[in-house]
Amino acid sequence: MGADIGVKGRRRVMIEGVTPEVDCGRFPVKRVVGQDVVVEADAFTDGHDQVVCVLRFRKDGARSWQERRMTALGNDRWRASFPVVELGRYRYTVCAWVDRFLSWHHEFERRQDAADIASALQVGAGLVGEAAGRARGVAKKQLREMAAGLVNEDPLEQRRELALSDELAERMRRHPDRDRQTAYSRELVAEVDRTRAGFSTWYELFPRSTVNDGHERGSLKLCVERLPYVAKLGFDVLYLPPVHPIGRTNRKGPDNALVAGETDPGSPWAIGAEEGGHKAVHPELGTLEDFRDLCAAAAKLGIDVALDIAFQCSPDHPYVREHPQWFRHWPDGRIQYAENPPKKYEDIYPFDFESDDWQALWIELASIFEFWIEQGVTIFRVDNPHTKPFPFWEWLIARIRKAHPGIIFLAEAFTRPRIMHRLAKLGFTQSYTYFTWRNTKQEITEYLTELSQHPSREYFRPNLWPNTPDILHEFLQLGGRPAFVSRVTLAATLAANYGIYGPAFELVEREPREHGTEEYKASEKYQVRRWDLGRPETLSHYISRLNRIRHDNPALQYDWRLEFHAVDNEDLICYSKSTADFRNIILAVVNLDPHHRQSGFVELPLQDWGMDASQVYEVHDLLSDARFMWHGPRNYVELSPDGSQAHVFRVRQRVMTEQDFDNFA
Amino acid sequence: MGADIGVKGRRRVMIEGVTPEVDCGRFPVKRVVGQDVVVEADAFTDGHDQVVCVLRFRKDGARSWQERRMTALGNDRWRASFPVVELGRYRYTVCAWVDRFLSWHHEFERRQDAADIASALQVGAGLVGEAAGRARGVAKKQLREMAAGLVNEDPLEQRRELALSDELAERMRRHPDRDRQTAYSRELVAEVDRTRAGFSTWYELFPRSTVNDGHERGSLKLCVERLPYVAKLGFDVLYLPPVHPIGRTNRKGPDNALVAGETDPGSPWAIGAEEGGHKAVHPELGTLEDFRDLCAAAAKLGIDVALDIAFQCSPDHPYVREHPQWFRHWPDGRIQYAENPPKKYEDIYPFDFESDDWQALWIELASIFEFWIEQGVTIFRVDNPHTKPFPFWEWLIARIRKAHPGIIFLAEAFTRPRIMHRLAKLGFTQSYTYFTWRNTKQEITEYLTELSQHPSREYFRPNLWPNTPDILHEFLQLGGRPAFVSRVTLAATLAANYGIYGPAFELVEREPREHGTEEYKASEKYQVRRWDLGRPETLSHYISRLNRIRHDNPALQYDWRLEFHAVDNEDLICYSKSTADFRNIILAVVNLDPHHRQSGFVELPLQDWGMDASQVYEVHDLLSDARFMWHGPRNYVELSPDGSQAHVFRVRQRVMTEQDFDNFA
Repeated sequence: MGADIGVKGRRRVMIEGVTPEVDCGRFPVKRVVGQDVVVEADAFTDGHDQVVCVLRFRKDGARSWQERRMTALGNDRWRASFPVVELGRYRYTVCAWVDRFLSWHHEFERRQDAADIASALQVGAGLVGEAAGRARGVAKKQLREMAAGLVNEDPLEQRRELALSDELAERMRRHPDRDRQTAYSRELVAEVDRTRAGFSTWYELFPRSTVNDGHERGSLKLCVERLPYVAKLGFDVLYLPPVHPIGRTNRKGPDNALVAGETDPGSPWAIGAEEGGHKAVHPELGTLEDFRDLCAAAAKLGIDVALDIAFQCSPDHPYVREHPQWFRHWPDGRIQYAENPPKKYEDIYPFDFESDDWQALWIELASIFEFWIEQGVTIFRVDNPHTKPFPFWEWLIARIRKAHPGIIFLAEAFTRPRIMHRLAKLGFTQSYTYFTWRNTKQEITEYLTELSQHPSREYFRPNLWPNTPDILHEFLQLGGRPAFVSRVTLAATLAANYGIYGPAFELVEREPREHGTEEYKASEKYQVRRWDLGRPETLSHYISRLNRIRHDNPALQYDWRLEFHAVDNEDLICYSKSTADFRNIILAVVNLDPHHRQSGFVELPLQDWGMDASQVYEVHDLLSDARFMWHGPRNYVELSPDGSQAHVFRVRQRVMTEQDFDNFA
Repeated sequence: MGADIGVKGRRRVMIEGVTPEVDCGRFPVKRVVGQDVVVEADAFTDGHDQVVCVLRFRKDGARSWQERRMTALGNDRWRASFPVVELGRYRYTVCAWVDRFLSWHHEFERRQDAADIASALQVGAGLVGEAAGRARGVAKKQLREMAAGLVNEDPLEQRRELALSDELAERMRRHPDRDRQTAYSRELVAEVDRTRAGFSTWYELFPRSTVNDGHERGSLKLCVERLPYVAKLGFDVLYLPPVHPIGRTNRKGPDNALVAGETDPGSPWAIGAEEGGHKAVHPELGTLEDFRDLCAAAAKLGIDVALDIAFQCSPDHPYVREHPQWFRHWPDGRIQYAENPPKKYEDIYPFDFESDDWQALWIELASIFEFWIEQGVTIFRVDNPHTKPFPFWEWLIARIRKAHPGIIFLAEAFTRPRIMHRLAKLGFTQSYTYFTWRNTKQEITEYLTELSQHPSREYFRPNLWPNTPDILHEFLQLGGRPAFVSRVTLAATLAANYGIYGPAFELVEREPREHGTEEYKASEKYQVRRWDLGRPETLSHYISRLNRIRHDNPALQYDWRLEFHAVDNEDLICYSKSTADFRNIILAVVNLDPHHRQSGFVELPLQDWGMDASQVYEVHDLLSDARFMWHGPRNYVELSPDGSQAHVFRVRQRVMTEQDFDNFA
């Protein structure tokens, strides 16, 4: 008859709606060391009994759970948080139970009838006695005494006071009856990265273009010489395109010409030649030792070296000879080059992840990451991860991070939203975004609101790039220097992670290969460029200043507290970031029009910021160092391409007025 | 080394975001027989390969899955639906795979190079040959021939045509290579109810008040006599408060008086006496046979009998004597009556679901439902389910519905939102709502939008009540007959399931026990009432008309297609319901002001309805039978408490104009 009843019928608390939770717990949420994980849950029971709800958490591998009581927010919602202090994975879940003592207490304090109070004291003594049974040592003794005190000869009122005392409540709180507690059905995971995963400033350069006087080509050694420049600009990640030997077969010439000249260097993404493949350094760039030296020198300046990992081979790559089974073949035996008919990429062989030898391929590809980690690489920028299988990346990133939890992976997946999100969920630490193509106020507001406020922020960490070697947006082509100023200011202040492809960016390089394309003219992808870092147009001072501001202001080092504010001008965008305690409030206003002066009134949420709207406050432009006194939420701003294109204010309430002087009045 | 790779690395399609899905599949979605379950999913793979996505479904217990191809909606979203034609549970899930032939086909049709085409034909022949290996009989033979045809001596263009032929595509579609298909990680469930679960019209009455001339009290026999009246009003569920013997100990008198007089009948919710408990009929109402007769007579009129199940006992209930362990005791041995200190309900003992004998209690309580099902009850209205454990209800409803899948459970849980929702998720077919307290335009719009559009509609089926024996809202008390008209019109046209507590409602009974309470004066809960069904104020004709309109118009029999429309008057509310094919469009306008005439312009979405906005259309008031010709989206309406308080229009485009006549022009 009742065989289907089971044994859990008296677990009366329901737990649901636990946040954060990604895809029913299938994927972790992301945090960096030092942050909190704020957990909420719905927990409730039938009837009027009192529920206690606890958050449980532990570092992966730790023997036991730590617990924190959750706070009732009303409407059956509960909240608590735990700090993540170490790299790696934390687990968390929620437990709750009907607390019989609290339920009794809740009724008891409202009882008015003396006979009922006397009866209820007997019930209470029973509950306290049971708790004594669960306690040890001194606590056991104290609880026993209190249980006795509830039903001794003392006057009723005195015993009632004991029953309602904080002391009893506190003791009972420590020895609850959890026999029938409910545990949430899933254990959830928080993946904890190092700080730089959440706050990083990237500079991409082509090592072969670090040409100095007296050199014809750049090199890894010359990269070392370039490091102080990169550091002075305030960047903390130096990101290098592939540094490996470049294939000769079907090598591309300047501006993607189908045939290369004898001395043309080819594209760094056509990886592999006689000299080696993904684990070799191009001889023209230097040696493996040079590479290690570069990593070490960068580390001394607090700079991570990020290496581009592009899983594809030139026809001359050793893998092609040694592991032909890793590539797809035509029936006649030829290996299939990359193509998207009618387009052909004859200098590139993609790997065939459907190969019967796929497991060996995975292991070899993983060893490439391991190899470069040994040389000193701490960050990988992964080229087109969306053209390789998702299970591969999930396996690979878990494997690498298990051994090296500080390693950061940036996904260069310029593709459809679900795919970008899946890559982020399965483990990529940071992700490229559509920012490069979001230029109007509405586009920027909508997109950054999504990035910073949508639940996907739990796993998708945006990294904003105003340019890349593949993307010179028309806005930059046509807008010139003021456009560059606007875009880099947006990237640097909208997102905690951003980067530029330099020196093209700071030197305001803006000639496209032809009208209607986003390709650079004389792109470094196919040729060496000699950059004149002293070009008068250079934005190096401006960028240096921006990055200093980012460094000094914790509000800019975190994405979730971004908020947009109204301005009555479609060409001006206004937003703020603030720390949770509002001790650091950064307010940015950027002119999106690279051609004309624009002005308008901004509207600020002073009360949300904990400010006294009736008092003046200071806005200090950290770019120009100018200070203004503002009053009230509505204030005038004016920006101009030939003056300043942006304000980055620090907002502070003036704490002193004349009334603060002792002798006033 | 690679031991952690596993074997699924070549399952390259990801499936996520499947809808509908309640709490990660923990709970079923609800449908009624004859509806469709529309399933969507995100499915995508790496690179440019072509994905095929199928919906799988089966009746619980069926041996194999049925499948339907899903349609790509763009942006990696897919959709298909399946019909539910039988009571009980259906399972559904999603599968997808990279289709090698489609991927090949997609590239092939864009190939321009003759040598490439020749090579690709060879590859294609291989794929078709493999498909032949999977096929049988004629299909096998045809595929073999086609494979040969791709690589025979025919001219290239002829073979290319074969490769791209619909015939080959169709054959290949039937024999896909699904070795590496991905199955969504969960099987989801749709719980299928009978039609009345989704469209029902309830009438609650107290059997003891069906007093006729010549009788002092009502009875089940007199209920039978009342049935034609109920049917004439258009109700299809007759809902009875508990019909069991009523306790004498601490029996309540009229208007909830603490002490009852000798002849006071007591509250039907103080269940159980000498004469029996939850499985007995109160002798004053009649016999079990009378009860069965009532059910049978109702069934003949197409009316379901719904019985109230209230799990609580009077001190005189046989259970108290036979199963004292099912109740909570004071240390001195007394059984604890219900209380919410300082309030006491001394005529009621709640069950103690924490009893050590809880399993026997569950089984006995389940047997109560089984008992009444045997007598002819098909619907249960459950009193205060939120004061009994959730695991109990989930077990009970599953158990009952397994044997009797047509049984409907209505949850009377006037409590906090999460609790109401959980009860709906775990199995209650319909739920009481907050409608009774939502009276302004904004309140009604927000709440009904939530009920009809929020994802919770997958499991939460609202049943709207303008009044109950416990709730005579102040709006009815003060607004009088026009308020009753507005509220019943709203209930009947906003929701497919609604009910009234009569004859109090149709007789416009509106005296509260005292100012500031929602209790009826001389409430039937504590005394017998003799209703004069012929009161001139009666709304019986109006309600009868409303219910006829509901019966005749499928748009009103379904909740999800409710839409609110703008009216430039806060006292007028306007909304529509339509069938998916727009052949039945019902437009309601209700005056929410019971005291004054109100007028305004309504704004209609003619284009959404597939109507030609430049042509006139007819709105036919199904309440008054008046017809109006309207033109364009904006039209004037005027409603008045002393005229009509509501329009319930059927909207139809006039199909005939003078130009339709042959002799025109």
